[in-house]
This record gives sequence, C-alpha cells and structure tokens, in this order.
Amino acid sequence: RACLREIRRLARKRKSDGDEDALPLCLSYKVHVASVNNFPTAAGLASSAAGFACLACALARVYGVEGDLSEVARRGSGSACRSLYGGFVEWQMGQRADGKDSIAQQVAPESHWPELRVLILVVSAEKKLMGSTAGMQTSVETSALLRFRAKALVPARMAEMARCIRERDFQAFGQLTMKDSNQFHATCLDTFPPISYLSDTSQRVIRLVHRFNAHHGCTKVAYSFDAGPNAVIFALDDTVPEFVAAVQHSFPPEPNGDKFLQGLPVEPALLSDELKAALGTDPTPGSIRYIIATQVGPGPQVLDDPGAHLLGPDGLPKLAS
Amino acid sequence: RACLREIRRLARKRKSDGDEDALPLCLSYKVHVASVNNFPTAAGLASSAAGFACLACALARVYGVEGDLSEVARRGSGSACRSLYGGFVEWQMGQRADGKDSIAQQVAPESHWPELRVLILVVSAEKKLMGSTAGMQTSVETSALLRFRAKALVPARMAEMARCIRERDFQAFGQLTMKDSNQFHATCLDTFPPISYLSDTSQRVIRLVHRFNAHHGCTKVAYSFDAGPNAVIFALDDTVPEFVAAVQHSFPPEPNGDKFLQGLPVEPALLSDELKAALGTDPTPGSIRYIIATQVGPGPQVLDDPGAHLLGPDGLPKLAS
Repeated sequence: RACLREIRRLARKRKSDGDEDALPLCLSYKVHVASVNNFPTAAGLASSAAGFACLACALARVYGVEGDLSEVARRGSGSACRSLYGGFVEWQMGQRADGKDSIAQQVAPESHWPELRVLILVVSAEKKLMGSTAGMQTSVETSALLRFRAKALVPARMAEMARCIRERDFQAFGQLTMKDSNQFHATCLDTFPPISYLSDTSQRVIRLVHRFNAHHGCTKVAYSFDAGPNAVIFALDDTVPEFVAAVQHSFPPEPNGDKFLQGLPVEPALLSDELKAALGTDPTPGSIRYIIATQVGPGPQVLDDPGAHLLGPDGLPKLAS
Repeated sequence: RACLREIRRLARKRKSDGDEDALPLCLSYKVHVASVNNFPTAAGLASSAAGFACLACALARVYGVEGDLSEVARRGSGSACRSLYGGFVEWQMGQRADGKDSIAQQVAPESHWPELRVLILVVSAEKKLMGSTAGMQTSVETSALLRFRAKALVPARMAEMARCIRERDFQAFGQLTMKDSNQFHATCLDTFPPISYLSDTSQRVIRLVHRFNAHHGCTKVAYSFDAGPNAVIFALDDTVPEFVAAVQHSFPPEPNGDKFLQGLPVEPALLSDELKAALGTDPTPGSIRYIIATQVGPGPQVLDDPGAHLLGPDGLPKLAS
C-alpha cells in the first residue's frame, strides 16, 4: 500500500507538471498484486528487496512513471532500491537526514564479469526469528561497533569493492566479501539483545571455504551471509564443479525430495584425496538442503509470455483461482 | 617449563639480593607437577588460567618466592594472572610494550557479594578448534573492531563494571556482562579467518536468558561466554531455582550418566504457565549436558589433607601409580 501511495503521488505530480495526456484514467485504477519467489522467502536472501523492486517497476509501468524508482521501492524494503538495477550495484549511504539521496547506482552491467558465479547454499528455509529491518534498527540504536564500522570502515571498503569489480580482481573481491560479511554479523552480535543469523551449519560452510582456499593457496571461493543462515558463495566458473563436489562431500545430501542442485548446470567433479583430507572428516548429512547455482543477472524484467503471468485474463491471481 | 624458569630466576634474584638463608637447596630441585581440573578442560572455561595460577602459587611456596606472581603465572597463560586472587579481580591492561604493568588487582574480596551465584551450563566438553591464545593474537592482527573496542570502549566499561560490583548493582552488572560478552564474540567474528565460539545451543541459552528477563521485566539473569560454547550464568541466589527449572524445561536432560546438577545444592522449583509460555515451545533435549552451580570463590589454596594431594608420598603422581 505504501508503494502504491508513492507511485500515485508521482503520477499525480507528473500530471500536474503539464503532461496532460499521460494515462488519464490510471489514478483511479484498482490494483491486483500477485508475487512469487523462486527461492526461500524471508530467509535472509533479499526476497523482499527482489519483490518490492519488481512491484515498483510494474507499478511505474502501469502508472506511466519514469525516472529513479528508489523512493517507491524503498517504501517496501530499504534494500529494494538496490535491486532495481541489474549487474553490480552500489547502494549509496547518502548524507541527508531524510534519506532521499540514499540511492542505488550501477557499478558495472551484468555482462561485465561473465565468469563470476553465485551459489546459494540453502541451509534452512525457515523464516527468520527477527525481520532484517527491525534487526537493523536495533543495531543502529545499540551497537557501538556498528556506528564505528559505518563511519570509519565502510567508505573505504565500498571504494575498494568497486575497484575489485571494475578490475575483475577475484582475489581481493573474495577476501573483502568475506571480511565484510563477517563484520556485518559481528555488529549483529554487538546489538542488544544480540542478533545471530549464522547457525552451526553456516559456521561449517565458513570453515569449508577457508580450508578449500588454504588447500589451493589462494582465494578461489568466497562466502557472504545476509540476514539468515544461508550462504551466498562466489567463485569463478572453473572453480564451481570442484567446490560443489566439496560441499556434497562435507554435507552429504539427504533424499528429502528436493533436487540438490538447482539452477545453472554444474559438471560433476571428483575430489582429490589431498583435498578430501584438507576438508576434514566431519560430514554432517542433510544440513544443506539444496544448492541454487546462478550468476549475475539483470534487474526487473517484463515477461511477455502470458503463461508466465501471475494474474490470469480475469485479472485475478492464477494461484487463487 | 617457562613458569619454572621464571620462578627459578626470581629465587636466584632473591638469593643474590642477600637473603642467604632462604632455602639454599631449592634451586637444584627437580619438580613433579600433577594437575587436575574438576570442570571441562580447554573448553573456554579458563582452565589454563586456573591451572597456571595454582602452579605459580605452588612453585612460589616451594622456592620461597613472595610478592606478585603475575609474571610467573603469565608464562603459562595470559589470563592466569587474574586467577591468582580470589573474589572480584580486575586485569589491568597496562601501558608498557613489554606488558610488565599488565597485572591483576582485586576489586572486592569473595565475601563482598554473598548472594551472587554462578551457573556453568556445560554445552559441550569438546576441546576448542582453536586455542584462545592463538585466536586472540589473530584477532589483534586482523580485527579493526577489536582495536576500536580496546581503545574506545573497554576503559569506560571496566570502570563501570568495578562500580557495579562495589555497589552490588545486579541490574547494571548483568546488562554490562551480557553486552561485553556479545562484543567480545563480535570481535572474534570480525577476525580473519573468523572465530566463532558460540554454537546454536549457546544462542538458545542467550535467547532463554533474554526471554526470562523480559518475562520478569528486569535483568534477573545474565550470561557470559568465554572462548567456548559453555555459558557462564550470573544470578542472585533467590533467582537460581526458577532459572535452573527454566533451563531444565528448555533443555530436557538426557539420561547420559552425568548428574545434571553439580556443585552447590539448588532447591527444586516449579515454572508458572506464564513463564513456560514466555520461554517458547522449542525444547532441545540433551544439548546442555550438565550444570555446575557455584559462587565467587577464593584464589589458589594450599590443601592440607594428604588425601587431596595429587602426588603420593613417593613424590609421583597418584593417578599414574
């Protein structure tokens, strides 16, 4: 409803700015919204950012609103402004107290680093105990480490990350990704009462990545965790088969009805005895439910295939009909 | 061996300072050392601090060395200087690069706050993956949050903690204890590679304490975690029975041969339905192995009962004979 109010405000503004022929009826439209994720919702995988970015774009199209949609998307979820663009996106902190200059900007398009792959290790599809928006507010109020991090550390890290991406420097990109993920979770723990999104399985994934990299003598794989226990793994395409085999070795899949490997195809690979020894001998069956293999993608897309639409010809959600 | 070298150095120094009649033979003594803990070793419960404090005191007695033994105890474990005293002890950071002024000082004797109780919730008696000394060194080298914490936050917190203890202010004592434990673990997570001493069970204990306090509307119980998953719980004596019942409700004991409640006697208590509801309905049987109920105690003690000695009349360890 907040997104809808904002898009209507922008549409009215546009009309009063003189563009009289712009969809005169749309301000009286009643709107049906249907939304589906093809990955776990409310599990720290930015599902609300994805959903509200799509909603903002769809509403902008319906109401004929152009230009930056940050203000619309952010009414749903702060980080949704980041998901309005494809490729590599920087969410700028901004200076203003009202947050209006806290917008997202594309650092590089999705085609910039074609070898980069992303693996989502779905540890648990359970919903979070605390929503990430409420959690972040408590952190800002109570964590002295968060205030120090935001002021003294984040600006240089943002610049360094943009450089890593521009220069496709995977070593530095991977190291900084892991360090920044760890530091974010450190500030969650410094919140009072403390917030802990990482589970024992998350910690095992962290150890697995560090052992995998130590075996290879360089940073071949990096992890990042958002507001949940599921790992987001970054690697170049030629590392993916061996790392997926290492995950399957350390977390033997249980026959639980899910396909263990989803998304992009991954070639099977064999692990050397040296790597197996380096990974240690403590497999925990079933603690990773499945892997989604994916890559850097585009922003919100309009789907032209009517079969893909979530609303039927009668304008009602298909799932409900 | 490092402790022994240091005590011999002090003994020689004392002799050359003119005290000629002081135990002339002791410098040639061969020494048998036997050490036993009555709580889990290398599990983040300061077992090395306790052991090396005892060793330093025993050696000082044998070699006739008096005065501050910080330098001796610290050769074994940094925090051992803190365990040389009973009651409430402050370990001062000091200013010197060689650490010689980083010594411990008693804030209040063990008799100062007789109502204070300590419960050790033994989550796991497994040894740590990383020793706490090596872990702390990596943290100092890699965590920007640790450097900030040590410089900007710890001095005021130390002063506030001493005040809480002097004034027996349990509310403020408990809050600061929890916040500082959380912040210590935050800096562990900010270490690279990250260190995580808290397990899923530790997190459940943290949630239990916050729910227990929220139910009562004040801080009746506080947790602290050192370099391991076991919880150290602080409470006043009149809160202990209800909290122990809450732990047994949330972590039903498994019949694993251990006595669940060890140490000081604790009266049985019944939980109200309101408290049960506040604690939530997700009991995890067996994840707490046992509880040690204890209180603020004295420093190292010489045991006069020969039956309690670890060395037999032949000077050899009894356990090995």
